[in-house]
Amino acid sequence: METTGQLFVLSAPSGAGKTTILKQVMANIPRLAFSVSHTTRFPRKGEVNGVDYHFVTKEQFATMRKKKQFLEWAEVHGNYYGTSRPAVLEQLQQGQDIVLDIDVQGAAIINKEKNIASISIFVAPPSLKELEKRLCGRGTDSTDSIKLRLENAKNEMAQAASYDYLVINDTLEDAVLTLQSVIIAERSRSHRTPEGKRFNSGYLQ
Amino acid sequence: METTGQLFVLSAPSGAGKTTILKQVMANIPRLAFSVSHTTRFPRKGEVNGVDYHFVTKEQFATMRKKKQFLEWAEVHGNYYGTSRPAVLEQLQQGQDIVLDIDVQGAAIINKEKNIASISIFVAPPSLKELEKRLCGRGTDSTDSIKLRLENAKNEMAQAASYDYLVINDTLEDAVLTLQSVIIAERSRSHRTPEGKRFNSGYLQ
Repeated sequence: METTGQLFVLSAPSGAGKTTILKQVMANIPRLAFSVSHTTRFPRKGEVNGVDYHFVTKEQFATMRKKKQFLEWAEVHGNYYGTSRPAVLEQLQQGQDIVLDIDVQGAAIINKEKNIASISIFVAPPSLKELEKRLCGRGTDSTDSIKLRLENAKNEMAQAASYDYLVINDTLEDAVLTLQSVIIAERSRSHRTPEGKRFNSGYLQ
Repeated sequence: METTGQLFVLSAPSGAGKTTILKQVMANIPRLAFSVSHTTRFPRKGEVNGVDYHFVTKEQFATMRKKKQFLEWAEVHGNYYGTSRPAVLEQLQQGQDIVLDIDVQGAAIINKEKNIASISIFVAPPSLKELEKRLCGRGTDSTDSIKLRLENAKNEMAQAASYDYLVINDTLEDAVLTLQSVIIAERSRSHRTPEGKRFNSGYLQ
């Protein structure tokens, strides 16, 4: 039987530190790739096509939607974002473990996919109060923007319990260790390891 | 709702390195206790009552059995070994995570317990050939003893796939990391974390 990759779905409220945690985890453990989304928005300075996003036109996006090539997609402020089904499937079939960084709505859609097993992880701040402190501390957001982010965070955190795992970003070090542990543990589930399959098949050398 | 401890059930063929791995993991991560078994065999040199085993008489053991105080028990070479149900339950109710180090038969019995959720982990050598090499390398076992251990290992490893997780002891470092990751990951399952319960209850501060 061929080894198949695992799909990890990661969500977090804005400001919870998901990107920083994920970067460290990907530096710590091997064989984990990031799934690159498609978007119709213009690249920001420094963003690379095929690395940060696949930048496509609205027409190209619409064609992909019609062909049902998105596992999930969303419209945010007039721009479209989507996760390519063939790209994800190809990576999984090659045995590549991948991480999808998507919002709560997208995660719920992927969770319902019958043909793709996924492991969902929610990254949360220890509390909304702490998130507020962090957002204010950055000094990059207006009071209105912080208020909106906190309102969104509240709604998103109410969905946290529907995820398989919860990573609390209290200290960065602990959060990295926890996310890393989830991936290592899921990889060592007995039915997923080559040894488990070998032991089970009665072929013992 | 009160936090309840988690029960980790650990099995391995003799010589797989389970004890060494477990000791390092318990040194690395907090709040993990070892469940002390009851036995009717005499203490060996250096063994401490209540630490290595609860040493009891055959009469005491028989009384506990009659009162159904064992989660599982076994007779090995004329001696009895058992896991005390009230001791395990008390620790779990206090929120203490515990590790049970038991054989494949005992693990199967605990797996069937309806009132106690457990997470089962099998520690295996990379192959029987490698196990043979290690057992011969120790120089402490006779050829017959090694042959018996390998025969037992083969039977035990055929059960590995029925465990939740499989830890392959290829290098000690990786095996410690994997076992540790399983425990950290299981602790961060969303329904088990205090934050998950708090987020879910609608109480967001």
